Amino acid sequence: MMFRDNLLKDRTIIITGGSTGLGHAMAEKFGLLGAKLAIVSRNEENLKAAEKKLRKIGIECEHSVCNIRDFEQISRSINEVVSSFGSFNVLINNAAGNFVSPSENLTAKGIDAIVDTVLKGTIYFSTQAGKYWIENHIKASILSIAATYSWTGSGYVMPSAAAKAGVLAMTRSLAAEWGPKGIKSVAIAPGPFPTKGAWDRLVVDSRYEDMLKKRNPLGRFGNLDEISDLAAYLISPGADYINGEVVTIDGGEWLNAGGEFNILGNLSPEEMAVFNRRVK
Amino acid sequence: MMFRDNLLKDRTIIITGGSTGLGHAMAEKFGLLGAKLAIVSRNEENLKAAEKKLRKIGIECEHSVCNIRDFEQISRSINEVVSSFGSFNVLINNAAGNFVSPSENLTAKGIDAIVDTVLKGTIYFSTQAGKYWIENHIKASILSIAATYSWTGSGYVMPSAAAKAGVLAMTRSLAAEWGPKGIKSVAIAPGPFPTKGAWDRLVVDSRYEDMLKKRNPLGRFGNLDEISDLAAYLISPGADYINGEVVTIDGGEWLNAGGEFNILGNLSPEEMAVFNRRVK
Amino acid sequence: MMFRDNLLKDRTIIITGGSTGLGHAMAEKFGLLGAKLAIVSRNEENLKAAEKKLRKIGIECEHSVCNIRDFEQISRSINEVVSSFGSFNVLINNAAGNFVSPSENLTAKGIDAIVDTVLKGTIYFSTQAGKYWIENHIKASILSIAATYSWTGSGYVMPSAAAKAGVLAMTRSLAAEWGPKGIKSVAIAPGPFPTKGAWDRLVVDSRYEDMLKKRNPLGRFGNLDEISDLAAYLISPGADYINGEVVTIDGGEWLNAGGEFNILGNLSPEEMAVFNRRVK
Amino acid sequence: MMFRDNLLKDRTIIITGGSTGLGHAMAEKFGLLGAKLAIVSRNEENLKAAEKKLRKIGIECEHSVCNIRDFEQISRSINEVVSSFGSFNVLINNAAGNFVSPSENLTAKGIDAIVDTVLKGTIYFSTQAGKYWIENHIKASILSIAATYSWTGSGYVMPSAAAKAGVLAMTRSLAAEWGPKGIKSVAIAPGPFPTKGAWDRLVVDSRYEDMLKKRNPLGRFGNLDEISDLAAYLISPGADYINGEVVTIDGGEWLNAGGEFNILGNLSPEEMAVFNRRVK
Repeated sequence: MMFRDNLLKDRTIIITGGSTGLGHAMAEKFGLLGAKLAIVSRNEENLKAAEKKLRKIGIECEHSVCNIRDFEQISRSINEVVSSFGSFNVLINNAAGNFVSPSENLTAKGIDAIVDTVLKGTIYFSTQAGKYWIENHIKASILSIAATYSWTGSGYVMPSAAAKAGVLAMTRSLAAEWGPKGIKSVAIAPGPFPTKGAWDRLVVDSRYEDMLKKRNPLGRFGNLDEISDLAAYLISPGADYINGEVVTIDGGEWLNAGGEFNILGNLSPEEMAVFNRRVK
Repeated sequence: MMFRDNLLKDRTIIITGGSTGLGHAMAEKFGLLGAKLAIVSRNEENLKAAEKKLRKIGIECEHSVCNIRDFEQISRSINEVVSSFGSFNVLINNAAGNFVSPSENLTAKGIDAIVDTVLKGTIYFSTQAGKYWIENHIKASILSIAATYSWTGSGYVMPSAAAKAGVLAMTRSLAAEWGPKGIKSVAIAPGPFPTKGAWDRLVVDSRYEDMLKKRNPLGRFGNLDEISDLAAYLISPGADYINGEVVTIDGGEWLNAGGEFNILGNLSPEEMAVFNRRVK
Repeated sequence: MMFRDNLLKDRTIIITGGSTGLGHAMAEKFGLLGAKLAIVSRNEENLKAAEKKLRKIGIECEHSVCNIRDFEQISRSINEVVSSFGSFNVLINNAAGNFVSPSENLTAKGIDAIVDTVLKGTIYFSTQAGKYWIENHIKASILSIAATYSWTGSGYVMPSAAAKAGVLAMTRSLAAEWGPKGIKSVAIAPGPFPTKGAWDRLVVDSRYEDMLKKRNPLGRFGNLDEISDLAAYLISPGADYINGEVVTIDGGEWLNAGGEFNILGNLSPEEMAVFNRRVK
Repeated sequence: MMFRDNLLKDRTIIITGGSTGLGHAMAEKFGLLGAKLAIVSRNEENLKAAEKKLRKIGIECEHSVCNIRDFEQISRSINEVVSSFGSFNVLINNAAGNFVSPSENLTAKGIDAIVDTVLKGTIYFSTQAGKYWIENHIKASILSIAATYSWTGSGYVMPSAAAKAGVLAMTRSLAAEWGPKGIKSVAIAPGPFPTKGAWDRLVVDSRYEDMLKKRNPLGRFGNLDEISDLAAYLISPGADYINGEVVTIDGGEWLNAGGEFNILGNLSPEEMAVFNRRVK
């Protein structure tokens, strides 16, 4: 436990993709530090299970079913959160999607699935949150999950790289534009943090897992507590002067190894085939 | 005239947005250096006019009507170009859209118009071109037009900043992934180059034009010949070893002044209003 | 107060330039969080005064007189610290120097004063600390103070920009090289944080101070508590997985305004002259 | 041959380190494009041999013996060049030094050798050239050789990484500060270009050479003609609007593989020992 108990007591936080993986880990961290939480996702079952778990440990939590690819559903979700909590002052853009594929095999459907969720969904939610905050003169923060391949790019996950780069540029654009209105924008670029969802789709093989570990200067993956602590720090009042910044937490992986998935270029077509079976 | 006459004689080049502005200037430059050209755009009238002008000065040119937001239309356009010329080996991702707006006023329609054209259209075209090249074992080049706000972001044109950042990440992703297959990917990040389209939408006022000039270390805008020469260099055989790189040509503007449109934050709401009248 | 009381209880920290300004603020912050401190500077008088102040509030503190431009003095200082505390496991590279000057007026003496202190001094200290840690199998952290003009550059403080860029590259080099040995390296890039020393030399005029504030998206300068909290976070055990990263804390200034001192290009030669009087 | 014969006929160019390797290759390229050349180096024998070779193919060339670590020698060299040619309007900062070493084994002497030559020498020469140009109202260009590890850093060559990062920051600082005075500054970041000097010191083993090739997306090293063409382009009149930019020419290596020499971390201490024998 790094922070004082009530670090986030004045924060009411919407987390997209908040029912599983990193989103859920952040929700729990923020809640234990005193924040009120609204978790948002397409999957009501997951939302209810997560909400139950969070409430069980004393966290004030609501959920809202929302597909962030739909502008209207976001509008409705924001209204629901404002109804429940009176207001909110932090948005965590965490919902994302990704799959491994050689770029020449991509279809319009595959590209859309990633770009529409990761980039357009994030822009939709951020602009509507900002509109609400500006109209109501609320001081607020946006924290988005980017990736180290936002700036290096990466083969085999190109639509994700493009979309995450867009999320970073959105962060910096809003930092300059909305900073004067009391809204700060920051991002986190995580390296390899094992979560069930991502690992199933992206790290399908223990041999590949070893390659990933070996090329990391610290020789290990991150754990969700580390990234959640960083997120808590960045949305806390003490970090108000950090605006427009993306903080990388990857053990130094990108410096050592460039674009995160380029390593897949070493696999044979047969070895690559295992990824296809994981894409729905 | 900087280059030898036949610098691009082995190049057959598709240029999206090739009928007007920068696209047309590049088409003319490439053609005068010996390239065969296929210009692509939604607007058939503009395409025919541009084709006529280029042919008049002895350039081998075809056109293909194509909305790059539609995956199938791109597929058809590539087939048309291959029918006409037998093959092609350069793709210039130049088509784009942009408008000035406070981010909190953006609608789903406005965000889609920019992201779908600039980012998704560019990914659609690049992946289909790559698929054709890889299947046919063709050595090729992709050159995309990015922006300096790909990395700084910029207020008031946020969807464009996000989409152009995505284009840069795509460039770097494909450079690593497709380099081994003989396909190189590069980008140009232009500063202020007056073209009728962009200037009408983005630089509506001579007072603002003066501010733009004043903050540029070189005290002037670029001219289309300068950026076309850079593009010709980058797709020429001598530049083959430049892969994954974005070359900035902006007089040093971003170093001096940060995100390109942040300066609009100095305007009053009344002054900003002039931009609304320019957005269709 | 953001952190739990004993966040840094296992840290023994050398801070160069630790007797005044940001160095002293960090020393106090770290000490209050349980760290043992060794402050290092050329000026014994300042060191003694700072040590007295820190001890008065219950902080365990030693000092060592050391000009970091001298490799041997650093070696001696490290020995002194190890004698006093048994060991140490954090190095804060904070000592620096800077002055405003048109680049064409720089002398060898002026260039050396900055590059030798900021860059060579930092490399000297870091390599000798690393040698000690590696020989003694100690897990450790290096935190260096860089600047946003590490990547944008900045006119009028060019040697400082070059030297700080070098500090950032050192940070990233060591992150990759020494990460596997249990030594992490990070940096902070501060925007405008008023300290007596820097302000006297760099912000000599209230009119200029207003310009600086106005171009910052947040409309204010940072305070030393904010940057000290960031430093405490980065050297705490919870931030172990952040390696090779530079965290910017500037309110978004560089995104809005480019290289930090380029703004001085707007001053007349007469206005610039005021800076000369401040350079010793 | 990419460019028209007289592309550089109005250029009088000083090249530091101009007698061997990349410096000599650029001198030849520029000379064949019509430039007058002054080559500068510590080694008179090499200079005379290079001068003889260049004159033999009809290039107008002078030499000046100069250790760029000495401010006064640079001043004298500039005077010599002005005496010979009447003036000069391009400076190529190419002289450098580098050696492979674990960072913990570095001595003050080793660090100084690199930082003083690569960074301080480059700043010394550039500021004195700029002073001459500004006093004489001459429109001019500075082109400096940086490295991709200017931004990624790199283990095992840390002082070079730090110094090259400084060179890049100098480039960007001067671009903003001196742009309004008609002096543009640019840089090239080369990947692996085999030259006798660098290869002897840095790529001592054919096994390591294979690793270097394999991780490059293009699967090959660059050749000196490619980088010399890029240099010629950047200092030609047509590239005037490129200011403050560093152009990477590395086949995409850094995107694929991070910091250039981090790969040496895979070698055993015995394998690393071979590098020691190459350092004088």
